[in-house]
Order: sequence, then C-alpha cells, then structure tokens
Amino acid sequence: MRQFVLYARKASTGPDFPLEDLPGRGGRMDVVARCISSALWISHGLRRDTCIHIVAYGPPKPPVVISFHGDRLRKVSPDERSIAIWIKKVLSSKKNPGITIRRIGFQTLIDELAAEGAFFYILHEKGDDIQKISLRQNAVFIIGDHIGLPEKEERYVTRFPHERISLGRIPYFASQCITIIHYLLDRMSA
Amino acid sequence: MRQFVLYARKASTGPDFPLEDLPGRGGRMDVVARCISSALWISHGLRRDTCIHIVAYGPPKPPVVISFHGDRLRKVSPDERSIAIWIKKVLSSKKNPGITIRRIGFQTLIDELAAEGAFFYILHEKGDDIQKISLRQNAVFIIGDHIGLPEKEERYVTRFPHERISLGRIPYFASQCITIIHYLLDRMSA
Repeated sequence: MRQFVLYARKASTGPDFPLEDLPGRGGRMDVVARCISSALWISHGLRRDTCIHIVAYGPPKPPVVISFHGDRLRKVSPDERSIAIWIKKVLSSKKNPGITIRRIGFQTLIDELAAEGAFFYILHEKGDDIQKISLRQNAVFIIGDHIGLPEKEERYVTRFPHERISLGRIPYFASQCITIIHYLLDRMSA
Repeated sequence: MRQFVLYARKASTGPDFPLEDLPGRGGRMDVVARCISSALWISHGLRRDTCIHIVAYGPPKPPVVISFHGDRLRKVSPDERSIAIWIKKVLSSKKNPGITIRRIGFQTLIDELAAEGAFFYILHEKGDDIQKISLRQNAVFIIGDHIGLPEKEERYVTRFPHERISLGRIPYFASQCITIIHYLLDRMSA
C-alpha cells in the first residue's frame, strides 16, 4: 500500500471553518483538500491501494489525524469544497466510510506506522534524487505543508527505517509532490 | 514558453454559475480551476514561463477562450474557489491582469498558436510514451477534460506539426497530467 502523511500545521481541528474561506479560516484547508484529491483520485476512479493521513495542528483542538482510506471510501468527490465538507462532517463526529478521525499527534501516528513495518520517505530539498534511487512501492511518504515539516518531527521519523528524498530543484506544492510520486511509482510498476 | 490548452466541454461560458456548485452548475469548473492551479503555481510562486488556455463549450454562450498568462498574473490564489471567482469576473467583462477572454472556439485558437509556430503535443491514450521521446520545452500541450477531446478537434490539430503522447496506462485527471508534464520538463531542463 502507498501511504502519505501530510503535516498540516494550521489546518482546522474543529468543524466550524467556513467553506467560503478554506485558505484563511480553514487554515489552508484548500492545501489539505488538494492533497487528498491528488492522493486518492485518478480519472473516473479511486486509488484503492492508497491511504492519506492528514495531521492537523490548527485551532481549536489540536492535534487531529484524519485518514482517508482509498479502499473503503464512498460517495466523495475530488473538488476542494466537497472534500472540505467531508472533513467538517468527521470533525463533527459524523461517520463516513473510509474516513477515520483520531485525537492523536504526528509522533503517535509515526509510531503506529512503524509498528506495522513501514519504510518512510521524507520529502526534503536536500534529499536523494528520487529518480536516482530504487523507490519502494509500499512505503509511507512524509510531506510538509506550505510551511514545511518541523525539524523536531523530521528527526523523530529518522529513528525508523527511512530515506530523505527530493523531487529536484523546483519547490512543488504538497499536492503536486503526491501526483509526481504516484506517477513515478505507476511507471515503475507498469 | 510552455502552453496548455484544456478543452472543457461543459464549462460555463457565463458568470452566473454558483461558487457552491462548481462541479455541477459550473460545468466541472472545479476541473478547470485545478488545471489552472497545476499549470501556473508552484510553492510560493507562479510559473512565469507558462500560459494555459481554457476552451469552454458549456452554456449559455459558447465558445469562450479564457487564457491565464503566468508572466502577467497578479493577486490570484491557487484554490479552486478563488480561481472560479476570477473566471466569473472576466466572464462579466471585468478586467484582470494576466487573464484574457475571447469569444472564439478551439480551432481558431489552434490556428493562432500554429501561426506563432507552435509544436503541438496531443495527450492520447494510444500516443507515444512520453518517457521515450525527446520532449520539447517550448510546445503546446492539448488536453481533454474528463470526457476527452472530441475526435473532430483532435484531427484539426493534426494539420499542424504535432505528436500524440501518452503518460502511461493510468488515466490521470487533466490537472494531474499537467503536473506530470511540468515535472518531466523541469527535470529535463535542470
């Protein structure tokens, strides 16, 4: 399984953010929604082999981990507003197939994934060139938001089997990184 | 310059679509917005060397070509709602730097680009593998929406210098195709 972890420093952890202001009062919930869309959708379908975990640290009650499981997701659309509506619902404790919510933080999530035997790729501007390494199909990709992954959290991941990787000299959006990683993995597995 | 042409069969050609229903009454305006975002934004900046033309054929007054020029764009954000607001504005004849609107169709746009000496890449599931060709940096990439490019329009492009290319066996979103093409061009030019 392909897994992505997005560290979303400002993303709202309560359901009261307005759909009319995902970038501002949603705490860059637009970034979060784009990442979910890039991770799980292809044309006319979902990537059933993929899961994305959003680690939200914005107000009012951080941290929260919201996980979208491609194998169980139903009735959601890939546009930012629809995804934000589903996030609001699960933050209001309404259930939805394929979306789970837990009041845990980044390090607890990493512990869990490591206990399942995960290999971690940390996206980092000084990492190894992704085109020069033999990329694993089943791995967890750790991605920072528009501000980046805090150093403390990055160091935490390095306790476990990991590699720092880079997509080159252009700083892409987190959602674009996910699309590119999927593409490179798709081509390798073809 | 890198240029993209998106054929958006259902995209609204008037300003009255609701921001609360970009996928439905906007005529998949969410797809259009995601393509613009993927074409023009990278982290903390715009791609000044890129232009994207949206050819909209939805109601009420098709066709319309809306062009976003990365070298002149100002004060726009990469989220779907913000981009849709700018599209509504230019469809209401309000001016915005870097966004132009014209009441022309696909073939007239292709004629213009060809007159400027464009080389066209047509994204096509049976095209040549993009990783096996020597991709040109300065070209026009023709992309269909979620329904695809009409055959008649595809045939029209083949009057001019062109190549059909494929990104592999996975059918990606139009916006994901744009991100992948940018990535491959970025890596070639690095």
